[in-house]
Amino acid sequence: MRDKLAGEVRLLNLDISHNQKPINSIKMNDIKIMNRAADNIRILAASMVEKAKSGHPGGAMGGADFINVLFSEYLVYDPEDPKWTGRDRFFLDPGHMSPMLYAGLTLRGFFSMDDLKQFRQWDSITPGHPELDIMHGIENSSGPLGQGHAMAAGAAIAEKFLEARLGKTMMQHKIYAYISDGGVQEEISQGVGRIAGNLGLNNLIMFYDSNDIQLSTETKVVMNENTKAKYEAWNWHVIEINGNDVAEIRKALDAALKEESRPTLIIGKTIMAKGALMADGASYEGNLKTHGAPLGGDAYIKTVTSLGGNHEDAFVIFDEVEDLYCARREELKKIVAARKAEEAEWRKNNAEKSALMDEWFSGKAPKIDWSKVTQKPNDATRSASAACLGVLAEQVPNMICASADLSNSDKTDGFLKKTHNLTRGDFSGAFFQAGVSELTMADMCIGMMLHGGVIAACGTFFVFSDYMKPAVRLAALMQVPVKFIWTHDAFRVGEDGPTHEPVEQEAQIRLMEKMKNHAGQDSVRVFRPADAEETTVCWKLAMENTDTPTALIFSRQAIANLPEGNDYEQAAKGAYIVAGSDENPDVILVASGSEVSTLESGTEALRKDGIKVRVVSAPSEGLFRSQSEAYQESVLPFAVKKFGMTAGLPVTLEGLVGIGPNSKIFGMPSFGFSAPYKVLDEKLGYTGENVYNQVKDFLKK
Amino acid sequence: MRDKLAGEVRLLNLDISHNQKPINSIKMNDIKIMNRAADNIRILAASMVEKAKSGHPGGAMGGADFINVLFSEYLVYDPEDPKWTGRDRFFLDPGHMSPMLYAGLTLRGFFSMDDLKQFRQWDSITPGHPELDIMHGIENSSGPLGQGHAMAAGAAIAEKFLEARLGKTMMQHKIYAYISDGGVQEEISQGVGRIAGNLGLNNLIMFYDSNDIQLSTETKVVMNENTKAKYEAWNWHVIEINGNDVAEIRKALDAALKEESRPTLIIGKTIMAKGALMADGASYEGNLKTHGAPLGGDAYIKTVTSLGGNHEDAFVIFDEVEDLYCARREELKKIVAARKAEEAEWRKNNAEKSALMDEWFSGKAPKIDWSKVTQKPNDATRSASAACLGVLAEQVPNMICASADLSNSDKTDGFLKKTHNLTRGDFSGAFFQAGVSELTMADMCIGMMLHGGVIAACGTFFVFSDYMKPAVRLAALMQVPVKFIWTHDAFRVGEDGPTHEPVEQEAQIRLMEKMKNHAGQDSVRVFRPADAEETTVCWKLAMENTDTPTALIFSRQAIANLPEGNDYEQAAKGAYIVAGSDENPDVILVASGSEVSTLESGTEALRKDGIKVRVVSAPSEGLFRSQSEAYQESVLPFAVKKFGMTAGLPVTLEGLVGIGPNSKIFGMPSFGFSAPYKVLDEKLGYTGENVYNQVKDFLKK
Repeated sequence: MRDKLAGEVRLLNLDISHNQKPINSIKMNDIKIMNRAADNIRILAASMVEKAKSGHPGGAMGGADFINVLFSEYLVYDPEDPKWTGRDRFFLDPGHMSPMLYAGLTLRGFFSMDDLKQFRQWDSITPGHPELDIMHGIENSSGPLGQGHAMAAGAAIAEKFLEARLGKTMMQHKIYAYISDGGVQEEISQGVGRIAGNLGLNNLIMFYDSNDIQLSTETKVVMNENTKAKYEAWNWHVIEINGNDVAEIRKALDAALKEESRPTLIIGKTIMAKGALMADGASYEGNLKTHGAPLGGDAYIKTVTSLGGNHEDAFVIFDEVEDLYCARREELKKIVAARKAEEAEWRKNNAEKSALMDEWFSGKAPKIDWSKVTQKPNDATRSASAACLGVLAEQVPNMICASADLSNSDKTDGFLKKTHNLTRGDFSGAFFQAGVSELTMADMCIGMMLHGGVIAACGTFFVFSDYMKPAVRLAALMQVPVKFIWTHDAFRVGEDGPTHEPVEQEAQIRLMEKMKNHAGQDSVRVFRPADAEETTVCWKLAMENTDTPTALIFSRQAIANLPEGNDYEQAAKGAYIVAGSDENPDVILVASGSEVSTLESGTEALRKDGIKVRVVSAPSEGLFRSQSEAYQESVLPFAVKKFGMTAGLPVTLEGLVGIGPNSKIFGMPSFGFSAPYKVLDEKLGYTGENVYNQVKDFLKK
Repeated sequence: MRDKLAGEVRLLNLDISHNQKPINSIKMNDIKIMNRAADNIRILAASMVEKAKSGHPGGAMGGADFINVLFSEYLVYDPEDPKWTGRDRFFLDPGHMSPMLYAGLTLRGFFSMDDLKQFRQWDSITPGHPELDIMHGIENSSGPLGQGHAMAAGAAIAEKFLEARLGKTMMQHKIYAYISDGGVQEEISQGVGRIAGNLGLNNLIMFYDSNDIQLSTETKVVMNENTKAKYEAWNWHVIEINGNDVAEIRKALDAALKEESRPTLIIGKTIMAKGALMADGASYEGNLKTHGAPLGGDAYIKTVTSLGGNHEDAFVIFDEVEDLYCARREELKKIVAARKAEEAEWRKNNAEKSALMDEWFSGKAPKIDWSKVTQKPNDATRSASAACLGVLAEQVPNMICASADLSNSDKTDGFLKKTHNLTRGDFSGAFFQAGVSELTMADMCIGMMLHGGVIAACGTFFVFSDYMKPAVRLAALMQVPVKFIWTHDAFRVGEDGPTHEPVEQEAQIRLMEKMKNHAGQDSVRVFRPADAEETTVCWKLAMENTDTPTALIFSRQAIANLPEGNDYEQAAKGAYIVAGSDENPDVILVASGSEVSTLESGTEALRKDGIKVRVVSAPSEGLFRSQSEAYQESVLPFAVKKFGMTAGLPVTLEGLVGIGPNSKIFGMPSFGFSAPYKVLDEKLGYTGENVYNQVKDFLKK
């Protein structure tokens, strides 16, 4: 639909000449004007929802004061260069509070009134939940609660990582996050709380909009915790304030900016639907009904009027508010000019680092000498991945690799061995030990890449990709090219048994390969390489893929290499012939991952019977389907019988092998069992002998 | 493989005549003997892993003391009737600590030495991670960290719910949970912490085995929190002890049993691999390497010897340990006899409730008069679901319905309106407000059903089924017939946009329909009904499905009813003809959910063109594939052209429509967009007019 980084900032054409306050005017704005500006946000938010006939006005009205203080006095950004690397980042967690964000950004000049009027409409840039759009000030897509602030924490890590390499001059910005009751309840906020506290992310400042109301109930029905004590237990700096009070918000932000070793949580008690009135003029504040529906008719009119607006002409910025933000823009010009001067000075004195930084923030694929990768023959592909990761750790200085407490098993320790862990106070390492929290890890890696300057990869067992799906989906939607490393790819996990044996997961993640992102690309690139050498090629393709997330699926067990002389570079075509390129095969055997070598081991007996057999390795169905029809037909001619073998559900291969009398797929129909994997191979039929039997039987029909 | 409730308890043939201590001997066992018993567990655990050549000895050896105290002095169960409803439940969270559990259960007489020797082997009853097997004392399948203790919390709710209906006599047992560092890190433990604290589940007693070591690192690398303060912030009663000290464990359990209003967390500092020695005789305790691999050779021999065992004959129960557990069994006989006498008395005085209880615990489908359900024509299926839920709330007194803060949107409020919320101190209601924590909700509902006596359902938006997948998978593996209610089933979520529009989710969840559980059944039954009336039939089938979880997928938007006279009962066949039953149709239009009525709206124009059109509604592909070949062929004859329409990815319908020239599927290739759903219907082609155009175009080819 729209390029997430393209577009133009439509700065409002404001006359700012009369309002040139000095930089130190910051925070000196009159409280009355500040409240007027917050009311302006409230009116715009309520009006957007009213016009769209759907949306969430209550929360937006309650959070308006904080957003106004942050946007008009604290957030540092370049109005003329929204992608400036030195900008403070603002991550919204509760995406349903988009009216607040859009209204605030409109005061900042990033959206027009027409954009607000198009809220939630076809082809507008103001969708119901915000979608990544840095040129309009939107740093992350949000909606599924909890993930936004996890991305913020990831961005905070990225900044500290880059500061350790480039110095403080280039990395002096702050990461702000905004979270609501729902986000604080989401399981993931525990992962973020633990990790941000443990790593001492003092550059992370989070405002918790605590308004005691959520969609279905008052918050107290489901949450009766001491949130302050909880975050303090995680080593956060916690400040409790009236979240609708300008002076208290300022004081809290000032304290947060001074914090040197801990992330800050500002718990702001706010009033849901602050300023809202019902049709009869009674207070509508704190009412559950304002959470997820327009105020409606007379209530809307009464509210806008009471807030000092005109319901017949509600989409306006009040003059004094315009002045406020105009003055802030002037201030920002000076702040940014000073910062950019500092940056220029640094660049002059650090030419090499400066060039590196530009390269890192370009988002281009890093240059890698893949010849440095040495693979052992017949290795497990997770070990082959470790070989690649070792080279990446050496050659890609802006790469962070993570694991959810499985680094020695998912073999991300191939990366770790060449670096060390990120720790509180020391971000010179490049390995992120996330602990056992897969979803948090995934979202934080996404956040690192949203920050820019960093390439992030994260590993765990493939079966636990289930925990990460919500993050994979957001990464896919936002087109963030994070690398997901998933090992122990099938029942050959063996003794660990059904809870650890992925079966449906390959088909599941390949659904994202079949789904298009807004740019029309496969939303996730998926690779399951057939052996150690193919692993190198797939890692190369993964690193070159700067458009979408990449999933890399590796085996636990050793795999016999494909036949000598195999042209592995062809893996770039998604599927290719590894044996039996005869033009008229009797049957084509198709698989991905370790099943390719299992198929291969059955071919000798088949050939002895005079059967012309072709073997196709298909690490990426998505890439294969993007090749020319002619190429696809040359590898998998429609008319030829095809036999597929997969350690996943049979449906995993249906897209390549087909459905019907010319197709047969041998797959895993069950959750698997606990036993040594070679026993399972025998019991479940993943042997050359069974390939022979299955294919013979298939060809008879 | 094996019936999860079948099997026989193999009580060891012990001579207990010489050891008949009185009941009050409880806790009077000699510390020396208790330590000897714990060492016995350590030896068995290390030996199992050694023999299997894989597994996790370290944690098991550290936790042995707690397990021994719990099993030999506290846990109340009937050794001769493992399914006794009044038993204390023990839920293990870290499934990799199975050697500890199996060893402890062996002392209790639930496993034989042969079973232990078969640890992690094909077809054994001691798989690598425990699988639900109540007859052998295994109350839950575990492995993916965090979920086990969430199930325990669910079981604790179930008990309180049943106590509110049946009284304390029948529900005086306790729910014990065992969690490790990894589980405490998993995001889900926040959901459990919040909910169990908020609901005051004082019948929940959790031991946290805090041993400072996890798979990849020392725990302090990833976690530097004050866990005590965190749980206290959630309103838990927290006790810190030396988890290897018998006296401290006893004292903590005594205090927990007296707690009247809060769940208890016993934080036991334990020594990983307690008692383990390296090959050179130096201490192996607290060593990372003992987490996930056999002690190995000489280290194993040294360890067993040092612990007072014989490495050449390690699979034994020491005499004095046998005496200890034998005495406990005698005690239990008396404890259980006394309790069963109480129960019998209660049953005599409460015949009606007694019968109800038996019915509830039978696991049979409840009798429901579905004629009480009145559906409005052309209603949204989520509203139709609400109509069913209202009747279920009235007629199924042991049903609990939950929502993750969306009850007024996912329409589980149809249930809520007939009851009230479960709250601290009052479990007379039947609605569980889980707050925004989908995974926790799902696992807790599973736990409720594992407890027995309760039928659980839970709702949220379909797109958030992503968060629940890990739980859905475990429910499917364990064959727990929980009902998942997922509404807002497609892009017709509309204005909320791509983050809220499920696209790949139907195909994703239907992968579980294609996967078989250990009993050979489709592991999840999935229904996406076509209109309000079909919704009633699907809910009926869901309630009758006591074998597997059921997923019910409902629309946000209103749907035109299927043609007058449609025989909805046929939905029980998974797919059936709703229009155009002519024997030789030119084309068959296939869909599930609201797309059936969209297809139907295109048929008039097609028929005007003389095209013989059949329309098939396929709410459950899985059920359809379980019908006779003849029936399947009668509905979807292989040779006839088929056109499918789905609001999911095209692949969603490939199993029914096929792949190839005789098949065409119109589906959603993208994440969708934010706009009113009728606009999206037009823009994306989900209209009768487009059905006409697409089918005409298809038939031309």
